[in-house]
Amino acid sequence: MMQKVQQPKLIDVDAMARWVRDNGVENIITGMADAIETDFKRWERFDKVARVASHTPIGVIELMPTSDGEEYAFKYVNGHPSNPARGFQTVTAYGMLADVDNGYPTFFAEMTLLTALRTAAVSVMVARHLARPDSKVAAFLGAGSQSEFQALGMRGTLGIEDVRVFDTDPEASEKFRRNLEPLGFKVTVCDTGEEAVQGADIITTCTADKANNTILTNDMVKEGVHINAIGGDCPGKTELEGSILDRGPVFVEFPPQTRVEGEIQQKPEDFPVVELWKVFNGQEPGRESAEQITIFDSVGFAISDFSALRYLRDSTKGSDLLKEIQVIADPDDPKDLFSMVNSPLLVS
Amino acid sequence: MMQKVQQPKLIDVDAMARWVRDNGVENIITGMADAIETDFKRWERFDKVARVASHTPIGVIELMPTSDGEEYAFKYVNGHPSNPARGFQTVTAYGMLADVDNGYPTFFAEMTLLTALRTAAVSVMVARHLARPDSKVAAFLGAGSQSEFQALGMRGTLGIEDVRVFDTDPEASEKFRRNLEPLGFKVTVCDTGEEAVQGADIITTCTADKANNTILTNDMVKEGVHINAIGGDCPGKTELEGSILDRGPVFVEFPPQTRVEGEIQQKPEDFPVVELWKVFNGQEPGRESAEQITIFDSVGFAISDFSALRYLRDSTKGSDLLKEIQVIADPDDPKDLFSMVNSPLLVS
Repeated sequence: MMQKVQQPKLIDVDAMARWVRDNGVENIITGMADAIETDFKRWERFDKVARVASHTPIGVIELMPTSDGEEYAFKYVNGHPSNPARGFQTVTAYGMLADVDNGYPTFFAEMTLLTALRTAAVSVMVARHLARPDSKVAAFLGAGSQSEFQALGMRGTLGIEDVRVFDTDPEASEKFRRNLEPLGFKVTVCDTGEEAVQGADIITTCTADKANNTILTNDMVKEGVHINAIGGDCPGKTELEGSILDRGPVFVEFPPQTRVEGEIQQKPEDFPVVELWKVFNGQEPGRESAEQITIFDSVGFAISDFSALRYLRDSTKGSDLLKEIQVIADPDDPKDLFSMVNSPLLVS
Repeated sequence: MMQKVQQPKLIDVDAMARWVRDNGVENIITGMADAIETDFKRWERFDKVARVASHTPIGVIELMPTSDGEEYAFKYVNGHPSNPARGFQTVTAYGMLADVDNGYPTFFAEMTLLTALRTAAVSVMVARHLARPDSKVAAFLGAGSQSEFQALGMRGTLGIEDVRVFDTDPEASEKFRRNLEPLGFKVTVCDTGEEAVQGADIITTCTADKANNTILTNDMVKEGVHINAIGGDCPGKTELEGSILDRGPVFVEFPPQTRVEGEIQQKPEDFPVVELWKVFNGQEPGRESAEQITIFDSVGFAISDFSALRYLRDSTKGSDLLKEIQVIADPDDPKDLFSMVNSPLLVS
């Protein structure tokens, strides 16, 4: 009984960059937000585990698996805050899909770019439920790799073009301006976080230090603001002053993971949170008034990567962006693996 | 500050098969056994977690990570006992190494063949401490993908050429004979497990059913035998009659994983086991008499894959077996990931 196996396909870095340029960052983020929300709505179908982390003093390497019973996905991702100073990315990632039925890998992709897109897509998915629909100004505390993707996502969903930014590294803020102004944004580079959040309807915190910092203090947060706290995915790394978390409902992806990694690690284990999938399904309220402060304590969850990988796979199907990556050994007789190394003549 | 990143290298299936044919299965297994034992001896340096498994009724997909603080490795591996009947491998795998210092992947490899080699290498590493040095006859219960690798490993270490085999599938036994006789083995194909273990000094159980079976019963095990129980890596899957485990010391890789997946899942949680790394370091005895029955309750642990990947990487360094797999996004300014998708002219 022979059947030639399909080797998995690969979207490498060049292919990913081409795919994004061909389709547009805003379009992709919006489409991906829809795909992720669709998967969040069928939350209970997924096999969910907190990510598996290997920590060292200078960084972390994580594996993030999940499955809906038909497809399996995981992402490899590192987080090394000191990397940029040495010419490396803080976060690099790749991921794959597999067929649960036979366990064979089907699709690989670089996920450094894809993670930036999916993180923005998650922020968008959440902001369209929680930010005030009349939001006009977005503040960014942190102007690193994620920041432009976040800004484009917010524009794609809420039409926001007025963005304010603060970063301890002025060159990062200038890069943010240089990238976004030509795309039609009004960018205000600020000297302090306090200045950046002036008049902001949405505040995005996206820094990478591996420490408990206070990027955003309680007095900086005004009524009606939506906080999009995307930085800080480690035990011992937070960005918000703890008292902010008492001022409005805190929305999370997967509570067991967020309690360890998110802003709420500052709070007791029974600190109340709202699970986003329940909001999307109408089981829990989102924003309830224009004055309410809403807080998204984002840490990034495997289901979003699952959705992003499938979105990419479906979007690139049959295209010349795909390479083949030959990692599945496929002897003619499946019990005769040895034949592949026994004689050159027998190798399939 | 710019530095061009090294994209990870890949050993794909064809390259792996060529490497094995060029170097020889027995040589590789013996060399790999040394490499694994060296790493087991520095056991306490490793970050150890039980594998992360996603179970479905028809199979399992697992991630097996570990790190020694300098290099990180993980393996993706599935186990689907019904696969061969559908023309697929029971087990497929691939793996990678990463640099802990910056979190970047450095090396990828197919690991279906590599796992067969490393599983044989682990059996060899253990058998040379636990089997009687005068062992002459090896019995194999199960003639699937692993069996020839196991036989060649035993010959490479203990000089065993007299092998006896039983499989419920007679074609698998014939394949075992067909592969090994031309290599100088005396192969006896048997009609029952009882017949196969007659006169055997080493009994290897290597079946793939996902169930609690009794491939080896207590009355089949004579004094002085070394049992190499390599099949059965799932909760709810065992091969040995439980009372066998009371007849001699049970040696294991990583107790928290073996208690869930190994033969000792039949026993209470405090069932005594001997950790192999302590035997290799002289902290615990191995075989203590010619009459003793020794039992290796093998489930496969991440450190062995770590060692196997490094052995392969070191052995193929600089060779034309390596391909490049471009999965690390590498913008000129590490904080300017967006530049890679913003304009074709800016892509590095």
